[in-house]
Amino acid sequence: MRDAQAADLATADLHGSLEDPALTSMNFLNEVTGRYPDALSFAPGRPVEQFFDVESVHRHLRTFSNHLSDELGYSEEEVRRTLCQYGRTKGIVHRLVARHVSRDEGIEVDPESVVVTVGCQEAIFLVLRALRADERDVLLSVSPVYVGLTGAARLVDMPVLPVSSGAAGIDLDDLAAQIRGARQRGERPRACYVMPDFANPSGASMDVATRRALLEVAEREDILLLEDNPYGLFHGGEGTLPTLKALDISRRVVYLGSFAKTVLPGARVGYAVADQRVTDAQGELGLFADQLSKIKSMVTVNTSPIAQAVVGGALLENDYSLDLANTREQETYRRNLRQVVDGLEARFGDCLGVAWNSPAGGFFVCVTVPFTVDDDLLELSARRHGVLWTPMCHFYSGSGGTNELRLSVSSLTGEQIEEGLDRLAALFAELGCIPAMKPMQAGGRAP
Amino acid sequence: MRDAQAADLATADLHGSLEDPALTSMNFLNEVTGRYPDALSFAPGRPVEQFFDVESVHRHLRTFSNHLSDELGYSEEEVRRTLCQYGRTKGIVHRLVARHVSRDEGIEVDPESVVVTVGCQEAIFLVLRALRADERDVLLSVSPVYVGLTGAARLVDMPVLPVSSGAAGIDLDDLAAQIRGARQRGERPRACYVMPDFANPSGASMDVATRRALLEVAEREDILLLEDNPYGLFHGGEGTLPTLKALDISRRVVYLGSFAKTVLPGARVGYAVADQRVTDAQGELGLFADQLSKIKSMVTVNTSPIAQAVVGGALLENDYSLDLANTREQETYRRNLRQVVDGLEARFGDCLGVAWNSPAGGFFVCVTVPFTVDDDLLELSARRHGVLWTPMCHFYSGSGGTNELRLSVSSLTGEQIEEGLDRLAALFAELGCIPAMKPMQAGGRAP
Repeated sequence: MRDAQAADLATADLHGSLEDPALTSMNFLNEVTGRYPDALSFAPGRPVEQFFDVESVHRHLRTFSNHLSDELGYSEEEVRRTLCQYGRTKGIVHRLVARHVSRDEGIEVDPESVVVTVGCQEAIFLVLRALRADERDVLLSVSPVYVGLTGAARLVDMPVLPVSSGAAGIDLDDLAAQIRGARQRGERPRACYVMPDFANPSGASMDVATRRALLEVAEREDILLLEDNPYGLFHGGEGTLPTLKALDISRRVVYLGSFAKTVLPGARVGYAVADQRVTDAQGELGLFADQLSKIKSMVTVNTSPIAQAVVGGALLENDYSLDLANTREQETYRRNLRQVVDGLEARFGDCLGVAWNSPAGGFFVCVTVPFTVDDDLLELSARRHGVLWTPMCHFYSGSGGTNELRLSVSSLTGEQIEEGLDRLAALFAELGCIPAMKPMQAGGRAP
Repeated sequence: MRDAQAADLATADLHGSLEDPALTSMNFLNEVTGRYPDALSFAPGRPVEQFFDVESVHRHLRTFSNHLSDELGYSEEEVRRTLCQYGRTKGIVHRLVARHVSRDEGIEVDPESVVVTVGCQEAIFLVLRALRADERDVLLSVSPVYVGLTGAARLVDMPVLPVSSGAAGIDLDDLAAQIRGARQRGERPRACYVMPDFANPSGASMDVATRRALLEVAEREDILLLEDNPYGLFHGGEGTLPTLKALDISRRVVYLGSFAKTVLPGARVGYAVADQRVTDAQGELGLFADQLSKIKSMVTVNTSPIAQAVVGGALLENDYSLDLANTREQETYRRNLRQVVDGLEARFGDCLGVAWNSPAGGFFVCVTVPFTVDDDLLELSARRHGVLWTPMCHFYSGSGGTNELRLSVSSLTGEQIEEGLDRLAALFAELGCIPAMKPMQAGGRAP
């Protein structure tokens, strides 16, 4: 042992992202979850597990192999090469992805505009890396926002300017004001990140008029829109609204897709649709997808063709429609969402200062409370009451969300939801949050 | 169509890496390969395909599933969750990887120090992102070097200072001089990237004395060593030398591992062994692996557990030894390497100015020639002679390699090698490069 000369390090000498709240909060949340394995958890936005099936992974893989040989006429050698060797950086299921977004999202796009990525997270990272050219480049984002967006921006040292979400899913006046402010400071706003359908964490959705108005603002201000859509297919039964990308006629939108909730997280396959035209230094015209692909070649080389084949097989087996393939999951999430909202009403309907939204779909409900919600409270909730959730402050880059918590409805059973809400009620009661009628009956009117 | 307002872009407004020679050269090489599909190719460092087998992918997956249930006692639900759900950021095959590096490389390491990544490329990226804290941080690297290293450094805006490779695999005096020079300029050299065994592209290997001396320099100068080892198991039959990590007693070495050549590229699974201790802002001590994991959570979230299971199954089926599992591949590469070196001797043994090295193993042979080797020559070689190879200049960050080309021996058959070398000889002849005796017989001695 020569520890005196050991090559040890301090985070102070490592990239600043490592002490950034976005990255450390993810770690904290995972760590709390790990420490209280028996707690009921409204925390993670994970898909329901009961329909997972390892045999279906094998079947998807065989379906895709058979597609290569039977429909595309690949020889056995070509099938082996496609699945086992290094492959096309932009992916091997791009044509299937293009058919899927056409079928389920009304997005018509050249398969060459599709970059298949290691989950949607890599797609986000690639786009931000490309757009952060120098220290002037900044990103706009609805606030509150998914931590993965904030973290990826931090990795490329790109500031994120928060735009109010409001009831409409985005406050367009605030968006315009933020862009103006940035330009006055000499910054270059490149894009605005949004999740128009059942957003994580707010649950908010944009109506069609807001979507169209957002596209107009983007065009007027000459910025891109980064549309992330992991939950769009989990609507409340009334179908989905058109995505921004489906409404986009001037290539303003980079569409970020995920198969984590619609096929399975274990494949780690997502994609970007990036049909913007890019002129290079030689004056040649290409696609933004090809620029993202160049970056991808230096991050992950290509997405595992085996993992892509699993997703490709699922697409083929369902005639490209993951909407139809997810009827059981849709029904589960819809029932859970209704049960959580009804359960909140039953328990807190009379509580002064306790409120929540009623999203039309997706995984998340936001609860506003008359006390401070932070990591200490989460710790106490886990230890004393055996229930986990997510403090909303983690989803605000600056201040905000200190009186809010996020409940994820996706991965609990009906019984667990009832028990979990009872435990939450016990926590709230401990913090003095009991039905409004009771204190009035006991102590009359406050001054 | 409203193209006047379309959201189109120029690479001038995107990150500088997109016009960097490292990234564009990879694209050019792929593009030439695509344009001449019938050319014999000494270009890509791809593993031999004849032993690939889609059924073995299914078998590996089942082996790993059975390991979880039979050996670790997982319930069916836990097996499904492990393979299909989101999972541990640092990976699920870390214990198997730790046993593998112990068995095959003599590296003894806590599995908690292992981060399973999306290929070795992601491991490189994570380490460089962590080490590039601010504009002072620079990387050292042997030169010539694998393009993926240069590209990943470019993505985090980290300058790479070339260190001469020389006959020993690294010139330690030059390394010390580069470090001194950097410090005099106010830069902070963080690490030196090396490939001690059968390096890509040079084919050079370091002897044990050089390895020990390199560790001493690293300790004296207080830098890390990033040891990349994709080819170590493909030795020429005399076994492998100890890796730097096996010799490392002061945690100087971050070991970068790949399963692309030893299991299959299609899994896209690699890893970093990062056992350095890191003190965070709260004064708590952790592992460098955990810092890399935090970054990974914002790049790819986690490596596909399905892809990991394929590699895990292969490790389990071979009692953790990929050395034993690759006897057919080792034999193929050894035979090919011998055939290429002998074939060069037979064709160019008398040619003035043509020379090549004779690596003890690995995939690559370097040929020095008395004419300029560039992309135009590669294009001509493909078009007129139907043979592809790689201009060495792509592996030098500045100047260098303009009279060298790299031949990869890994993915051609014996017949293809003979035919390919004949085509190469035809190209060389066209450039005036014919056996030395002939011009002397024809025209006497030059002045």
